[in-house]
Amino acid sequence: MKKKKPVILVTNDDGITAPGIRALVEAVKGFGTILIVSPDSPQSGMGHAITVNEPLRLYPSKEYGKLESYACSGTPVDCVKLGIYEILKYSPDLIVSGINHGSNVSTNVLYSGTMSAAVEGALEGIPSIGFSLTDYSMTADFSAAQKVVKSIVKEVLEKGMPEGICFNVNIPKLPYSKIKGVKVCRQAHAFWEDKFDNRKDPLGKPYYWLTGEFKSYDGGKDTDLWALENNYVSLVPVQYDMTAHQVLGKLNYSF
Amino acid sequence: MKKKKPVILVTNDDGITAPGIRALVEAVKGFGTILIVSPDSPQSGMGHAITVNEPLRLYPSKEYGKLESYACSGTPVDCVKLGIYEILKYSPDLIVSGINHGSNVSTNVLYSGTMSAAVEGALEGIPSIGFSLTDYSMTADFSAAQKVVKSIVKEVLEKGMPEGICFNVNIPKLPYSKIKGVKVCRQAHAFWEDKFDNRKDPLGKPYYWLTGEFKSYDGGKDTDLWALENNYVSLVPVQYDMTAHQVLGKLNYSF
Repeated sequence: MKKKKPVILVTNDDGITAPGIRALVEAVKGFGTILIVSPDSPQSGMGHAITVNEPLRLYPSKEYGKLESYACSGTPVDCVKLGIYEILKYSPDLIVSGINHGSNVSTNVLYSGTMSAAVEGALEGIPSIGFSLTDYSMTADFSAAQKVVKSIVKEVLEKGMPEGICFNVNIPKLPYSKIKGVKVCRQAHAFWEDKFDNRKDPLGKPYYWLTGEFKSYDGGKDTDLWALENNYVSLVPVQYDMTAHQVLGKLNYSF
Repeated sequence: MKKKKPVILVTNDDGITAPGIRALVEAVKGFGTILIVSPDSPQSGMGHAITVNEPLRLYPSKEYGKLESYACSGTPVDCVKLGIYEILKYSPDLIVSGINHGSNVSTNVLYSGTMSAAVEGALEGIPSIGFSLTDYSMTADFSAAQKVVKSIVKEVLEKGMPEGICFNVNIPKLPYSKIKGVKVCRQAHAFWEDKFDNRKDPLGKPYYWLTGEFKSYDGGKDTDLWALENNYVSLVPVQYDMTAHQVLGKLNYSF
């Protein structure tokens, strides 16, 4: 009996025309039937945002030739929801998001639209993976990343993924031969030290542009930051229970 | 020696003119020096979104009379970042967010702008609390919620909060005398079963509006959902490490 081809939903946060999602589609298209639902404009830093106060638009696209693809006016999480509930009307076998132009290690999992799309997949009980390359350039070389994608996607399609989990995969900016392997690791304890670039517009009115520096407070060798700095691919299994279980028994409030 | 008055940053996701944030300001203004930085328009469902692809505007507001307040063009998390890094230039003693018009229990912590503002506070090491009233009406009665806010804020200012934690406080829609107390609990295992309202605009073009039903798969009596359904205030301590530590040792990927 011929096994049914897996259905793979592809999304990202850099938008449907980004080289990163093009590289991702190329890497996964041999594994199954592909559906691309991606934002019509860049949605970096959109985190787990969903569109509730305005309508969503979905435009059939020819961006990927014969592959079914849609540009969506909403966020990456909107794309996942529309892909499952409006286009497919069933759960795909796999969701892949990315390949993000730039790192999504550590606490960036909270800000990242790429990763929030994967977390939404986990909430739906669907094996989901967010891929990021630590290269912000729009002309980044995704060839090594594509090999990593193929290897991990193949393994996930064969072995599955623990339920309620998605993977945050970050790939170092290196030729494939220089990548030492995959480290399964935890999210590093690191944060943005924010700064606002305080500017004046042509009318003399002030505006602010968020900038800053990402700083680690984590010396551990079991983190995603360590893995990347040491030429490994980092793979953090991500879950969505934000309860601080460690303090549950220690808190007591009354009124 | 006179103790320095605590500085309290107030934000929300329903926008600076929402009755909920007005009720919150009224409830906390006796506890210290108040700074309000709130979105200039509703930002429900914005999750942990930050504005990186466009500039931010900050408008001094008279909305709260003599209290220092600003309307911000960005998200709740942008408001927290601007409050700390651009307006105060130091960390406030407490961040309070809300009072949200509607529940933020369970996995809604991921979608909620109200809660993401509090999580951003936790990332900054600042005691932070998101408050929500399980009443979506713009004419909701916040008087019982205000008493709950006062009681919890007083306790947090006196006793502090474990580091890297914020609180997700949901208040049932009940008169104060009917509220049984505060339950410290975990995030329930519950999810949105999404649906899209598929409509046509006046030009005949399709658009989609996200809707759905929130469904629980959790029979536990130690959850926020259970607490609210049983007339308690729910208090979930929330942390920002999304690593699925329980599967870390069980995964192994190679290529």
